[in-house]
Amino acid sequence: MKALVYHGPGKKIWEEKPKPTIKEQTDAVVKILKTTICGTDLHIMKGDLPEVTDGRIIGHEGVGIIDEVGSAVSNFKKGDHVIISCITSCGKCEYCKKAMYSHCEKGGWILGYLIDGCQAEYVRIPYADNSLYPIPAGADEEALVMLSDILPTGFECGVLNGKVSPGDTIAIVGSGPIGMAALLTSQFYSPANIIMIDQDDNRLAVSKTFGATHTINSAKEDAVEKIMSLTNGKGVDTAIEAVGATATFELCEEIVAAGGHIANIGVHGKSVTLHMETLWSRNITITTRLVDASTTPMLFKTVQSGKLEPKKLITHHFKLDEIVKAYDTFGNAAKEKALKVILTS
Amino acid sequence: MKALVYHGPGKKIWEEKPKPTIKEQTDAVVKILKTTICGTDLHIMKGDLPEVTDGRIIGHEGVGIIDEVGSAVSNFKKGDHVIISCITSCGKCEYCKKAMYSHCEKGGWILGYLIDGCQAEYVRIPYADNSLYPIPAGADEEALVMLSDILPTGFECGVLNGKVSPGDTIAIVGSGPIGMAALLTSQFYSPANIIMIDQDDNRLAVSKTFGATHTINSAKEDAVEKIMSLTNGKGVDTAIEAVGATATFELCEEIVAAGGHIANIGVHGKSVTLHMETLWSRNITITTRLVDASTTPMLFKTVQSGKLEPKKLITHHFKLDEIVKAYDTFGNAAKEKALKVILTS
Amino acid sequence: MKALVYHGPGKKIWEEKPKPTIKEQTDAVVKILKTTICGTDLHIMKGDLPEVTDGRIIGHEGVGIIDEVGSAVSNFKKGDHVIISCITSCGKCEYCKKAMYSHCEKGGWILGYLIDGCQAEYVRIPYADNSLYPIPAGADEEALVMLSDILPTGFECGVLNGKVSPGDTIAIVGSGPIGMAALLTSQFYSPANIIMIDQDDNRLAVSKTFGATHTINSAKEDAVEKIMSLTNGKGVDTAIEAVGATATFELCEEIVAAGGHIANIGVHGKSVTLHMETLWSRNITITTRLVDASTTPMLFKTVQSGKLEPKKLITHHFKLDEIVKAYDTFGNAAKEKALKVILTS
Amino acid sequence: MKALVYHGPGKKIWEEKPKPTIKEQTDAVVKILKTTICGTDLHIMKGDLPEVTDGRIIGHEGVGIIDEVGSAVSNFKKGDHVIISCITSCGKCEYCKKAMYSHCEKGGWILGYLIDGCQAEYVRIPYADNSLYPIPAGADEEALVMLSDILPTGFECGVLNGKVSPGDTIAIVGSGPIGMAALLTSQFYSPANIIMIDQDDNRLAVSKTFGATHTINSAKEDAVEKIMSLTNGKGVDTAIEAVGATATFELCEEIVAAGGHIANIGVHGKSVTLHMETLWSRNITITTRLVDASTTPMLFKTVQSGKLEPKKLITHHFKLDEIVKAYDTFGNAAKEKALKVILTS
Repeated sequence: MKALVYHGPGKKIWEEKPKPTIKEQTDAVVKILKTTICGTDLHIMKGDLPEVTDGRIIGHEGVGIIDEVGSAVSNFKKGDHVIISCITSCGKCEYCKKAMYSHCEKGGWILGYLIDGCQAEYVRIPYADNSLYPIPAGADEEALVMLSDILPTGFECGVLNGKVSPGDTIAIVGSGPIGMAALLTSQFYSPANIIMIDQDDNRLAVSKTFGATHTINSAKEDAVEKIMSLTNGKGVDTAIEAVGATATFELCEEIVAAGGHIANIGVHGKSVTLHMETLWSRNITITTRLVDASTTPMLFKTVQSGKLEPKKLITHHFKLDEIVKAYDTFGNAAKEKALKVILTS
Repeated sequence: MKALVYHGPGKKIWEEKPKPTIKEQTDAVVKILKTTICGTDLHIMKGDLPEVTDGRIIGHEGVGIIDEVGSAVSNFKKGDHVIISCITSCGKCEYCKKAMYSHCEKGGWILGYLIDGCQAEYVRIPYADNSLYPIPAGADEEALVMLSDILPTGFECGVLNGKVSPGDTIAIVGSGPIGMAALLTSQFYSPANIIMIDQDDNRLAVSKTFGATHTINSAKEDAVEKIMSLTNGKGVDTAIEAVGATATFELCEEIVAAGGHIANIGVHGKSVTLHMETLWSRNITITTRLVDASTTPMLFKTVQSGKLEPKKLITHHFKLDEIVKAYDTFGNAAKEKALKVILTS
Repeated sequence: MKALVYHGPGKKIWEEKPKPTIKEQTDAVVKILKTTICGTDLHIMKGDLPEVTDGRIIGHEGVGIIDEVGSAVSNFKKGDHVIISCITSCGKCEYCKKAMYSHCEKGGWILGYLIDGCQAEYVRIPYADNSLYPIPAGADEEALVMLSDILPTGFECGVLNGKVSPGDTIAIVGSGPIGMAALLTSQFYSPANIIMIDQDDNRLAVSKTFGATHTINSAKEDAVEKIMSLTNGKGVDTAIEAVGATATFELCEEIVAAGGHIANIGVHGKSVTLHMETLWSRNITITTRLVDASTTPMLFKTVQSGKLEPKKLITHHFKLDEIVKAYDTFGNAAKEKALKVILTS
Repeated sequence: MKALVYHGPGKKIWEEKPKPTIKEQTDAVVKILKTTICGTDLHIMKGDLPEVTDGRIIGHEGVGIIDEVGSAVSNFKKGDHVIISCITSCGKCEYCKKAMYSHCEKGGWILGYLIDGCQAEYVRIPYADNSLYPIPAGADEEALVMLSDILPTGFECGVLNGKVSPGDTIAIVGSGPIGMAALLTSQFYSPANIIMIDQDDNRLAVSKTFGATHTINSAKEDAVEKIMSLTNGKGVDTAIEAVGATATFELCEEIVAAGGHIANIGVHGKSVTLHMETLWSRNITITTRLVDASTTPMLFKTVQSGKLEPKKLITHHFKLDEIVKAYDTFGNAAKEKALKVILTS
């Protein structure tokens, strides 16, 4: 089969690889129908995640058709259409039993990272019964690719951890795909005001069409000042960090109201300064989370009922074998006005 | 009347001051029966809180007898015995309505800070109906002094925010009075293991008699290593910071388990380094809180039923007019083996 | 002034009464701008609530202008526009401190019941600081009348107690004003399916325009069978009882899924049969609640931001002095296709 | 092997049966070391559960040694000591993913009910990885038999659902084994007062040694009156029904305070009268639950740390082959002063 293979920093090739086979009786092999590229994949390609070794097939998102199942797989059979979760869950360990699949003792995030992934014609999925979700006939499979990772991530790490509630004023710092995912799913809870902060006017304009009530271009305006002005000097009930940088995290510290929440989604490469000299008495909560993808079934219901429209996140389409070109587009997201790209086999 | 008055850094005098009177119809004047000294009072005396001005009467804890009430006070009358809350609550503002009294628009922590306090023969208590609690006949009033501040602080900021649960393993960093208050009240929730960390062997030994299951002298042992060894490499479910220093906060970051909680109690004068490069994916929660003293009525019930023994925290007794001497003892807590001192009028 | 006065079962007169005055320093006198009629008022008029005595002015909803305040009122002054809460809260008792205002030791529901109410030119509001909410200039005051009672009731007793969550399937039994209030506010939490059950086709048709995804006329269809068919035999996540009758409560017992919630809003005059022989093992929760109106400030934010449109509930308008005619219309709600009526002074 | 076999109402025989074997690759066969008898087993023996068919081996509690595992079992191997959960969990279905194992689509309570159970020398356990818990060397295995069913049942259905909190006043109606399990585990949360209600003076006396603060013999005293007198007319924060009868459930309705909880544990054969005419406005919560046994790992930690002493529940010991005699003792619990019996192979 063909697959996108990492060959060290800066080198990725769409090349022939052996089709995966069942290794454990809890495995399934899935034929990829549609997949996408994650910001994390860009980091891998740059060499930022040294755990990823030469020869690894990248990608942790997608929908597909079951090609083969191991003898212990009972929820799926050949021919079933499935959403692939970015998180592998054994269903048996202490963490899985509390739905904290991200820290599964035998799984967690391994796909396209420590084991071969989804940017390929076929992928082997360990613990298939707990790591795949069924797609009924007639569902919009392109939309469901967004349930592999980006929507659960924005929702779990940003919205749920941030305890977004009706009537709240929230700020989302960063309007890339993950900030947009938080923006879409935050509306499940009817906040009164959603303030989107970014340095890209195009993305801010898009965020308005996605439901943002206010936007701030932090390259041009003083974000803290504007937020204090919008909130009567109190700050926001929830500040969602969707970038993974020092400055954006520290901005969240400045804009969170007393009694409020900072919900981190961003992947950080460096420490940040936590201003405990002011925050100690402010009754705030700061949360971190690697997505558990435990809400994928719930998100599926909101998609089926039309409460959530994942396709808003999809800006570009490619054939699967055009994936290198797709990386170029996704890698120049600002210029290309790209959010998520869909690759179809 | 006599009162302890702050006259700038390093200068405090037990001196004559006018007896307070009712200024607002929601005020009460309380005759102090018993009061105590808080670590924060030591900071005030050093000049660390510049908001405290020359002439201020210090102190925010105590029990007393109602001497006079304003015309709008309905819960109390002259002669009633009361616990004085360290936090003043108007009962009418947005924050009071959500029991976040610490941020009351007209109150919060003001006693012995922005208005005259309890280390005096009489004190004026604003919003008396919402800032005092009744003491029934026969209660142990000395024990109840601990409900003004130290026990709600340890409980709310450490135990409740830290979500201590049955079977958990928790660590409390700092075994001064506030760490001890967290230690006593954490046992409401039956954690399996309570690890006390300090650099004072005497305090650690005392903590064992208060219910700690393990102690670590971090001056002599590698606390991180020992905790990882005790927890099978996982870390603690809850790490309670009860010091207010950079090193102790960062120790909490190192020992918290995936999915765990860091609950800050300490008053911090400086920022800390938050290691988001490791914590971003650990599903942790960090909380800060200025005590709301909203749990004082609940703590009262646990004292009355014998579930909580506040008197364990009391190590020294003085007459109220010996308060300068009491400050010396409390200020040399390690040497004097002092936790809380009681001053009786 | 003029007021609607109850003179025993079946007798109500719009007649001259003395204008109320400040009795306690925490009182306010409010000039009524707009008021409405509640289903409970119909019960009072029939004599179903014997606590209501001859001569009582009825009504517990409305917006108005502060005419006079007692000396201890600090949040409001003459001329302020206010929402009147149906629930009086002293702000000082054990119940008020936990935001369970419905059981306030000195308040709760007393307005237009145990003390004179809002269907009058003026009304005296005890504990004004905690029982009134400010209306900013420019707000739509007619819409805000719905925040006195009906929307908090539907939201608190039905939606919050019923733990409505994104993706859920819920049923609301009864599509009168209170069921409609639950319908509107349930959408704060983005349930996937909202099934409205009633015996009035007009109301069911209206509910569709308010956001119901399915309707069942239980006079014509087997509601249990239809719900089981819609839910794959599982039942609903939340069943909201918005009638107050034996049959409708027992319908909720039949349609609730394992792990689900029955949230009662209805006022019941009789006991119901609880089928513990089937429910004991179904992991369900049943809740009851007298509205606390603790969410009025939050609901206000959702109205101001356009997330909630209370005016959808208003079907008829009258002058305040046409109130007897308004009762006729509201009392023939089915025929008149009435939900809420607005009376303007 | 030998096993206790149900042969229709009133007929049980300790007789030879084929040793169970692995049927599915997720199965384990466990050699029973210790087992016990549940009140439910008495009902089965009477014929109250017609789903139980002639030839069924009874029993759903015990500890044992793994004798054999299916090829898909990864958490256990031959020779491991294990606690057998009364609830079978597949770990893969919608219910298992939310830890509601009682409603597992392929499991739930089936052991000694729909499939052969634990009152035998060997038992086959389906979905062994999710339905067994490891016992470390040196643990007190007799105590751990109480973690199969009785302690999780009392804790989950009574204490957790009842939201028992520090300082609360709770009542437990019924002081049989399950009421005693609730009594022991309620103390994890430090209620101020625990009122035990029963008609057996011996059991009430025992409950005092287990931590009850008050006892009421409802055959001799008016329980409602006494509770109102103890609670200043307010009633209890939580009423736990641990009998499964109409009168005891309705007693809970009478004694629950406004804002309180009724947590049902009892197995009910008949409907009860729910007094909605008084309860509708009382802000109460009623819960039902079939034990999920999801807290067994947490309870294990509390046992290991000495916070919970399950052996208090054990009153009698027998050899496994004396099980018919053990049934006689357990069936005459009042006379024999029996709580739980232990049968050792």
